[in-house]
Amino acid sequence: MKLTRQQFLKVGLGLSVGLPPFVGQATRLHAITPLDPLPSWNSGPTKSAIIGFVTQVTARNSPDFVAVADRIATFDNDGTLWSEQPAYFQLLFAIDRVKALAPQHPEWQTQQPFQAVLENDLKALAASGEAGLTQIVAATHAGMTTTEFEAIVKQWIATAKHPRFQRPYTDLVFQPMLELLAYLRQNGFKTYIVSGGGIEFMRPWVQSVYGIPPEQVVGSSIKTRFELRNGEPVLIRLPEIDFIDDKEGKPVGIQKFIGRRPIAAFGNSDGDLQMLQWTAAGKGLRFNLIVHHTDAQREWAYDRQSPVGRLDKALDEALRQGWTVVDMKRDWKQIYPFQS
Amino acid sequence: MKLTRQQFLKVGLGLSVGLPPFVGQATRLHAITPLDPLPSWNSGPTKSAIIGFVTQVTARNSPDFVAVADRIATFDNDGTLWSEQPAYFQLLFAIDRVKALAPQHPEWQTQQPFQAVLENDLKALAASGEAGLTQIVAATHAGMTTTEFEAIVKQWIATAKHPRFQRPYTDLVFQPMLELLAYLRQNGFKTYIVSGGGIEFMRPWVQSVYGIPPEQVVGSSIKTRFELRNGEPVLIRLPEIDFIDDKEGKPVGIQKFIGRRPIAAFGNSDGDLQMLQWTAAGKGLRFNLIVHHTDAQREWAYDRQSPVGRLDKALDEALRQGWTVVDMKRDWKQIYPFQS
Repeated sequence: MKLTRQQFLKVGLGLSVGLPPFVGQATRLHAITPLDPLPSWNSGPTKSAIIGFVTQVTARNSPDFVAVADRIATFDNDGTLWSEQPAYFQLLFAIDRVKALAPQHPEWQTQQPFQAVLENDLKALAASGEAGLTQIVAATHAGMTTTEFEAIVKQWIATAKHPRFQRPYTDLVFQPMLELLAYLRQNGFKTYIVSGGGIEFMRPWVQSVYGIPPEQVVGSSIKTRFELRNGEPVLIRLPEIDFIDDKEGKPVGIQKFIGRRPIAAFGNSDGDLQMLQWTAAGKGLRFNLIVHHTDAQREWAYDRQSPVGRLDKALDEALRQGWTVVDMKRDWKQIYPFQS
Repeated sequence: MKLTRQQFLKVGLGLSVGLPPFVGQATRLHAITPLDPLPSWNSGPTKSAIIGFVTQVTARNSPDFVAVADRIATFDNDGTLWSEQPAYFQLLFAIDRVKALAPQHPEWQTQQPFQAVLENDLKALAASGEAGLTQIVAATHAGMTTTEFEAIVKQWIATAKHPRFQRPYTDLVFQPMLELLAYLRQNGFKTYIVSGGGIEFMRPWVQSVYGIPPEQVVGSSIKTRFELRNGEPVLIRLPEIDFIDDKEGKPVGIQKFIGRRPIAAFGNSDGDLQMLQWTAAGKGLRFNLIVHHTDAQREWAYDRQSPVGRLDKALDEALRQGWTVVDMKRDWKQIYPFQS
């Protein structure tokens, strides 16, 4: 089905004067595939809730209108914008780095937690606990300049393959969420990542993958130190935690980096609960959404018992507060861009 | 002198297709006041250096062209965008707060450093050193929610008067720098504040005063803690330093908050030296500018010996590296907006 010139102008005008694009022509628009802003979302209450919210805050005559400057939307990354199984992809990056660096560290062959990584013994790695993880982060994420680390991440993201799909990790982003990011930006939103993942692990690739610039990434970080190295200013990454952007840390990170409260927040696990609470508590209409992983065939199915991306308290709170819960299996026509 | 319609179109077209607006018509444009982007700057090498740089990085056919996304400009605040004498304005805010809170703290009458503040004994206050200052910051900047602190700052900035000029502190912003901020933004730059001052002390008013949104402010901070207070999520400001965005901290803060290197940086003191070095060391054309306070009549004159805003090492480095140094007395037609 094609748009007549008149239909095209009507829609175009509606958009350009800031009127809600769907008012009065919802049926016609939904029938015209090229104009559906969320083509990978099945029709139903979830999609309607998103479109309804965006329409309400962008229509100038709406009691819920929000000025463009205040249209801040924050997105968790792992499990919300891309997959997080069988482990956070950044941990898989660290494991690959340990293996790449092993020839320079013969002592790792008999030293935990490195031995566990080199022998692919994830049980022993898990047994090394937080202390072990900290050692791995220090060995793989610190001791180089910020510029050097950026190059390492870029190289890995361009070449490493996910074990299940045998594709680059950035192929495992959610097509419906890419459409949602674009839809929000088309409607004047500033889209931010607010992730427990490392800020410098995300920045090198989020612009090309999500359309989100480096300055709109909030994440966990290690400390850095400015120094002149042979007269050249560098920032050295230190083996010392600076900030953990998870759970109670997410509202702290939002306030620190953005300085204003989001009007919409998107997450998938208990690590996002406080960000959603913080967002919901603002004045005026707010929108909170949780991605519930329910599709073991196309992606993964997990929630209350999962060691990675546990969704338990936040699911209860979503049900209590009426937040939107995406059922991936039911709501998403397509999961990954390559599955179309 | 008025523009003819033809001249107007020529200038307009030059701008709209991204050509350097001044190429080939510099003389004519300088004679036409309404089109001068920097009317409060006297003609001369300083003004030419600014306009030359902007023209070089924005002209599509220029070897120094920089994509819009990479046009990041960072500005120190105290002494660069507004005055900083007789003391950083945030310290004057803290002093006002101590006085306002004194009735609830009778013990302060005989307890340093509070007694010094209440008796206007700035010598005794200075003698209390960093420990004393920390106590004053803790008493005036912590112990409330972020929302409460924002309201306190807004109230103070709207009502407090500068001792010398008997005007609101936000009247003491530099008209030439306001024009420079606007000129850069018109040319696709994203303008950031990178200040040693408190991030939450600046955010409530920088949008209306400088046109800089809260998310483009990098500054020093104290820690905050997320908690539910009677079910309401709040962020409590804690009496504990989180980050000092000064000297070596400025490149660290830039990398942490922005995640890419500025192509232009503006400062006025040794506290800005590392930011300028970090900016200069990037690839491609860069622009560094130092505001030198040389006008005791209209503002203040100080540099190498000043306890506040000392400009010593950074001035030597500017001369060595050929960075642009503003001589306020010589280069600025007007200092404050109210002096016109």
